[in-house]
Amino acid sequence: MSKPSLARGTRDFGPEQMAKRTFIFDTIRRSFQRYGFLPLETPAFENLSVLMGKYGDEGDQLLFKLLNSGDFSGKLTEEDWKEGYKPLTTKISEKGLRYDLTVPFARYVVMNRGTLAMPFKRYQIQPVWRADRPQKGRYREFYQCDADVVGTDSLLCEAEIVTLLHDILPSLGITDFTVKINNRKILTGIADMVGAHGMEGPLCVAIDKLDKIGKDKVVEELLERGFSSESVVKLDPVFDLANEKEPFAELKNWLGDSEIAMKGIQELEEVWDMVKVLGLENPKIQFDVTLARGLSYYTGAIFEVKANNVQIGSISGGGRYDNLTGTFGVPGISGVGISLGVDRIYDVMEELNLFPESRKTSTKVMISNFDVDAFRFGLAILPKLREAGINAEIYPDSVKLKKQLDYADRKSIPFVILIGSDEMQSGLLTLKNMHTGEQQKLDVDGIISLIAAEL
Amino acid sequence: MSKPSLARGTRDFGPEQMAKRTFIFDTIRRSFQRYGFLPLETPAFENLSVLMGKYGDEGDQLLFKLLNSGDFSGKLTEEDWKEGYKPLTTKISEKGLRYDLTVPFARYVVMNRGTLAMPFKRYQIQPVWRADRPQKGRYREFYQCDADVVGTDSLLCEAEIVTLLHDILPSLGITDFTVKINNRKILTGIADMVGAHGMEGPLCVAIDKLDKIGKDKVVEELLERGFSSESVVKLDPVFDLANEKEPFAELKNWLGDSEIAMKGIQELEEVWDMVKVLGLENPKIQFDVTLARGLSYYTGAIFEVKANNVQIGSISGGGRYDNLTGTFGVPGISGVGISLGVDRIYDVMEELNLFPESRKTSTKVMISNFDVDAFRFGLAILPKLREAGINAEIYPDSVKLKKQLDYADRKSIPFVILIGSDEMQSGLLTLKNMHTGEQQKLDVDGIISLIAAEL
Repeated sequence: MSKPSLARGTRDFGPEQMAKRTFIFDTIRRSFQRYGFLPLETPAFENLSVLMGKYGDEGDQLLFKLLNSGDFSGKLTEEDWKEGYKPLTTKISEKGLRYDLTVPFARYVVMNRGTLAMPFKRYQIQPVWRADRPQKGRYREFYQCDADVVGTDSLLCEAEIVTLLHDILPSLGITDFTVKINNRKILTGIADMVGAHGMEGPLCVAIDKLDKIGKDKVVEELLERGFSSESVVKLDPVFDLANEKEPFAELKNWLGDSEIAMKGIQELEEVWDMVKVLGLENPKIQFDVTLARGLSYYTGAIFEVKANNVQIGSISGGGRYDNLTGTFGVPGISGVGISLGVDRIYDVMEELNLFPESRKTSTKVMISNFDVDAFRFGLAILPKLREAGINAEIYPDSVKLKKQLDYADRKSIPFVILIGSDEMQSGLLTLKNMHTGEQQKLDVDGIISLIAAEL
Repeated sequence: MSKPSLARGTRDFGPEQMAKRTFIFDTIRRSFQRYGFLPLETPAFENLSVLMGKYGDEGDQLLFKLLNSGDFSGKLTEEDWKEGYKPLTTKISEKGLRYDLTVPFARYVVMNRGTLAMPFKRYQIQPVWRADRPQKGRYREFYQCDADVVGTDSLLCEAEIVTLLHDILPSLGITDFTVKINNRKILTGIADMVGAHGMEGPLCVAIDKLDKIGKDKVVEELLERGFSSESVVKLDPVFDLANEKEPFAELKNWLGDSEIAMKGIQELEEVWDMVKVLGLENPKIQFDVTLARGLSYYTGAIFEVKANNVQIGSISGGGRYDNLTGTFGVPGISGVGISLGVDRIYDVMEELNLFPESRKTSTKVMISNFDVDAFRFGLAILPKLREAGINAEIYPDSVKLKKQLDYADRKSIPFVILIGSDEMQSGLLTLKNMHTGEQQKLDVDGIISLIAAEL
């Protein structure tokens, strides 16, 4: 019999972590709902035809694939076996685990577009799975919290993503953060301007790394990716823009001849303006022309959120994509969305010590168990506590009191009711405060009022 | 481009279903917490060494298995391919999807037994996956809601399962239900008494079907399973017991010589007694000596819950198992638990029309969008509504009012705020009640009070 273990890259969440994670999920969910987003859940696995080809070659490799049930190998020939694992996979596997929440959402929109009230605002909070190499802070199973609006081009959506983030993060106690924003159209315009028309893809990939590898390495990469040295020289303003006080004005000077870039700048200015009208006096937003994010399907605004003064990557990201459902044969449905990473938010909150002390989900009072009579006496009291909405339990076995109190202590139960023969006769029970050690005699109603007041 | 589809046996849960399911989950979770159960979540996939051999041969077949990542077939020989799919599976797959919540819980207890406060009361609400043939009411992905106590033999746990069910089901509106109870020890004693010592396994399997196939077929099956016709004749009292008014008294007469059967009866009587002390005047419990349930690992009490007057199988089941962690090399940890099937509960509630009308999670008020000026005016009002805790949105595009009202209608939004030039001048906005069609003029505070009063 081997010692059981967790699958690599996965985790159990015990009661204490669950309480903290639930606090994060509840806060995010409440904000999503306040903004009119409706809940959606999709299955853990999808047909591979839905998933493959949506995340690039690397993504296809990182999809967890389910072995077909039953005799999956009976009909295969020797040829099939010798072809190598990639073609073989398609013959013995038809389903894969959810890799993100966006592709299943797109599938849902396509399958239900006849009945959905458009614009459709949905949120989705579910785990996703990636066969990545596990490392610190990177797991094979992790939750995403997504909110998306599809079916409208209105820049209100972009502005509301900004205010939504300003609603969620302070509710979690994260007050020092920056929402970085860019617009793909500006990147497209820049590619045009430097004589690298249509190359905003590789341009994005390279300048996305500016933060991590610095200007020299980015230049090197651009040259490798086929940019002429003339183009690269023309890119200089991009690298300086971060230090500009009026980046939009500067950009307009530089990119005035590019219609698409001007459109991108105008969109951002409109978002900036709408955010103010929506009541955010000092929005924590920052234009960042180097922000491109890995995924290349964004067509308008691009978002990324950093918690400041914490050594953790971005805690949220998103943007506008004009062709969410195109890969399923339904063009013309534009959307914009944001995804929050719960694991990183959890780490930020741990590091900054932001979790509230009280753990709502655990037992508030335990009734001790001296002997058969006291136990029966306690049994009759238990339902009264619960009916009053108080999480309560009675210790199941008549063991030494020390062991019972130790149990209450380890479970962080704040109150213990002690019942002996005195208590049974008088009806006044001894209530022990486990923090202070203090004891007092109260009847059941008194105990209920006292504990209810603490909640 | 093929039309996208759901994987067989899986479902999307759109906003309306999500609201109903959330109501069920929240109700169950609240009751679990009131009883002092703490939350646990385990990963979606486990090493196959943890899962295999725990659910019988059929279960092993129904496990969804994950194909190993990377070049899973490179090192395999021709021999491996020819061995057939079962041995081949172990060579190309190391992980499987969660099949129930009990085995992962057992693994968790074994891995964390040094730090858990025993007795450990945990609840777990997560999906499980089974490669079953999909049919009406049977899915390949479905949720289980489990509550278990491990580390105590106290019959309090059994009694609290009964009261817990009497807490949860009426909270959902399900008031007409029966909790059937049996005890494995009685079945063991019966096997002894009829001269079929140690054969309570096949006895259980056969008499478990009494409800479905009738006495004659059960007798037939017992003979097939190796019971002598003499033994089968002696079993007659079992079939009559259902009609007895005092089944325990009858059983004691019949099984008085069987120490283990008497122990089982005594345990049930104690549970009956404790349930009353716990305040349940008229418990909806019924002793059913034919209740055995498919899984053979129960060693004490066995539970099953039926909603009456609804043609749906059991909505909950459970029992006591004395050797939860034995398969992981840690003997002697006794447990007792209950599992609620959300999908069947959902179906019962739909059939009996028990879902509450109000859907808490959806938008309560929508601000219409006439033109740019009205839109900006509305934008400034929006955050005030949300700050007051009201789920609110503004229609993003300046389209025809009919289209905007249609959207509100389809999303079941009860109120719409209409803003025109009059409204902007006076500050008195038109609030339209979407149910009644009624309109009234109110300032923002008045609107907030009116909507808050409706929540």
